[in-house]
Amino acid sequence: MNKSPFKASISQIAEQIQPFHVMKILGEAKALEAAGKKIIHMEIGEPDFPSLPCVHEAATQAAALGLTHYTPTLGLPALRDKLSHFYQSFYHADVAADNIMITPGSSSALHLVLTAILNPGDKVLLSDPAYPCNRQFVKLLQGQLIGVPVGHDTQYQLNNELLKTHWQPGIKAVMVASPANPTGTIIEQAELLAMANFLAEKNSYLIVDEIYQGLVYERPAESILAHKNLPDNVIVINSFSKFFSMTGWRLGWCIAPDVLMPVLERLGQNLFLAAPTPSQHGALRVLEADALADLEQRRQTFESRRNTLYHSMREAGFRLNTLPQGAFYLYWDVSEFTDNAENFCSDLLQATGVAITPGRDFGDYQANQHVRLAYTTTQTELTLAVRKIAEFVKTYQAPENS
Amino acid sequence: MNKSPFKASISQIAEQIQPFHVMKILGEAKALEAAGKKIIHMEIGEPDFPSLPCVHEAATQAAALGLTHYTPTLGLPALRDKLSHFYQSFYHADVAADNIMITPGSSSALHLVLTAILNPGDKVLLSDPAYPCNRQFVKLLQGQLIGVPVGHDTQYQLNNELLKTHWQPGIKAVMVASPANPTGTIIEQAELLAMANFLAEKNSYLIVDEIYQGLVYERPAESILAHKNLPDNVIVINSFSKFFSMTGWRLGWCIAPDVLMPVLERLGQNLFLAAPTPSQHGALRVLEADALADLEQRRQTFESRRNTLYHSMREAGFRLNTLPQGAFYLYWDVSEFTDNAENFCSDLLQATGVAITPGRDFGDYQANQHVRLAYTTTQTELTLAVRKIAEFVKTYQAPENS
Repeated sequence: MNKSPFKASISQIAEQIQPFHVMKILGEAKALEAAGKKIIHMEIGEPDFPSLPCVHEAATQAAALGLTHYTPTLGLPALRDKLSHFYQSFYHADVAADNIMITPGSSSALHLVLTAILNPGDKVLLSDPAYPCNRQFVKLLQGQLIGVPVGHDTQYQLNNELLKTHWQPGIKAVMVASPANPTGTIIEQAELLAMANFLAEKNSYLIVDEIYQGLVYERPAESILAHKNLPDNVIVINSFSKFFSMTGWRLGWCIAPDVLMPVLERLGQNLFLAAPTPSQHGALRVLEADALADLEQRRQTFESRRNTLYHSMREAGFRLNTLPQGAFYLYWDVSEFTDNAENFCSDLLQATGVAITPGRDFGDYQANQHVRLAYTTTQTELTLAVRKIAEFVKTYQAPENS
Repeated sequence: MNKSPFKASISQIAEQIQPFHVMKILGEAKALEAAGKKIIHMEIGEPDFPSLPCVHEAATQAAALGLTHYTPTLGLPALRDKLSHFYQSFYHADVAADNIMITPGSSSALHLVLTAILNPGDKVLLSDPAYPCNRQFVKLLQGQLIGVPVGHDTQYQLNNELLKTHWQPGIKAVMVASPANPTGTIIEQAELLAMANFLAEKNSYLIVDEIYQGLVYERPAESILAHKNLPDNVIVINSFSKFFSMTGWRLGWCIAPDVLMPVLERLGQNLFLAAPTPSQHGALRVLEADALADLEQRRQTFESRRNTLYHSMREAGFRLNTLPQGAFYLYWDVSEFTDNAENFCSDLLQATGVAITPGRDFGDYQANQHVRLAYTTTQTELTLAVRKIAEFVKTYQAPENS
């Protein structure tokens, strides 16, 4: 395009939206890889497993039958029904198909739900650290963020006491994730129920991100929706990406009270029209018993990896406060080595080829003294990575003025 | 969920978002169909053809190779490259891959682009009638809508003269579509270029929706991007849904000036992360010569249908002002029969089983005297539909007070 008098302008809100800092690490890692260096990837929040073969077989079978048109905005009725049954069998939770909306990924579900409830200036309370996009969604909707610093004393999670301490008028919603990204920690169900009840009295929503549910270790998978006396301020977000290993298919869902369903449908009609049809047919298949059995094996693999990573780090003498109970992340306090986690990650990568994520992506609180390790690679690689990190920190000195 | 003290609240903006009125017609049509009545579907803006078999074959082949992970937010590099070549061969347009962003459908591209440029209170000028979601996106971002009434005297399109007449300070962007939904009319390239230049001087963006490009009749497919001296205020939206028959795969793209690309990438990272991976592999395949030849045959089919519908309506004595030049819509002025197009559509459906869309979905201007007919069904059905409509209007009297 040619020179013209036009001076491009960018919206103030878009200017405020932060990129993922992990992308810088990923870019450096790829450059090193291209230059021939061996990289151990522990920076990306994505299972290394591809989706199960039955998923793309089902998607292509449906397409061969001509099922490639738009589905209804709320999703394929058969998939909403099947998810309803899945909640019954997997979580012992009564969830009506009518309260389930299929979305193009959980990103879309989070954005949709917040758009449905937030007015400009409304406050949203969430933990610091937390999933990065949540803060950006609130900014996009001109909400006010209330970040509550959480550390290892509360397993890096909010609880009812913290809610009460930090309560202030104007909080329209509280967002939690269990298991959480970046920490892998969970909130116990009794605590979640207490939080939901407290917020119901305050006329505030509780948005529970359960996208890592299913990926929990030494404990059963649990949904807040299993509570029989749940107040109707609870919205649940979930996804076929993590437990179901279907990241690239971009499919998620949300479960919302009756009153929100027509609002979510109207917003969805405009914002995305419908979730991808082949993905929805794939998801129908992944909810079958044999596929779920395969996914249970993958869960066990993640559990073994977690144990390998955690225990080999302990053996290497690293200070670890919290054994993650789910997801595939370990949030590591590196304050004994650096007060600049971003430089630490970059230096570690250059020196050893081990790629991990600086805390800064997840918030402000102690962000410079934390890093996230994703155990989305083999146990052999994880063991090797820990050995390399142990070697690296022996002599690590953060460069001055960097 | 149980009774609780919680009183649900819905955001003011979400309350203002309108549903598609066609959904009411679609619901009535499905109810009649379920009761055994034969329905001729001309209400939905979707090709009746499924996607080409090579699309799902390519998607499943990629998946079998394990390619089911997230792609980069801007899209598969190979697909962006291939689209760049497609612009060269199909449109004789120089479009760098770096300026192409792959999105989950064009809905997402439109929302993303407007989010990138609009501040609250900014004005967006568009034609009335126009694609319904555009108005909703502007509302969601708290922009101000300036709807310019257009009728058959300008082929239901904006032009540079109308832009100048309706110009006022604070217009951040003008949105046009060529060919347009609901009218199927186009804006000539010289006119579009004049509009782009006028807007560049005013520091305003021109957003050109080309999602029906390719589906044009008795004329070549044309993109505004083929102009060699295009100012850099032009943003193009496109989609694999219409010409490429890939609706359910939810894949679109936008082409934007350099300065917007990092902004769009940051927004995309948060709002959708990446477009569906299997869909992107399918799209790589649909851009091959043999697939494009199949799509050209489908285009010819749509052209024959347009001719059949238009000429049989003329023969039936209906007043038609404008021969649509593209897409698969005919916008019909029914003021000789009714001053309430919504009732007219509903009554027509009940009496004849022919489902069409009331003008109200597309704006306010003369909305009650227009309906949209989609020629997304066979010529036999189209001929039958016209016969039924002709029979219906002979005795049609709009019910009073309805």
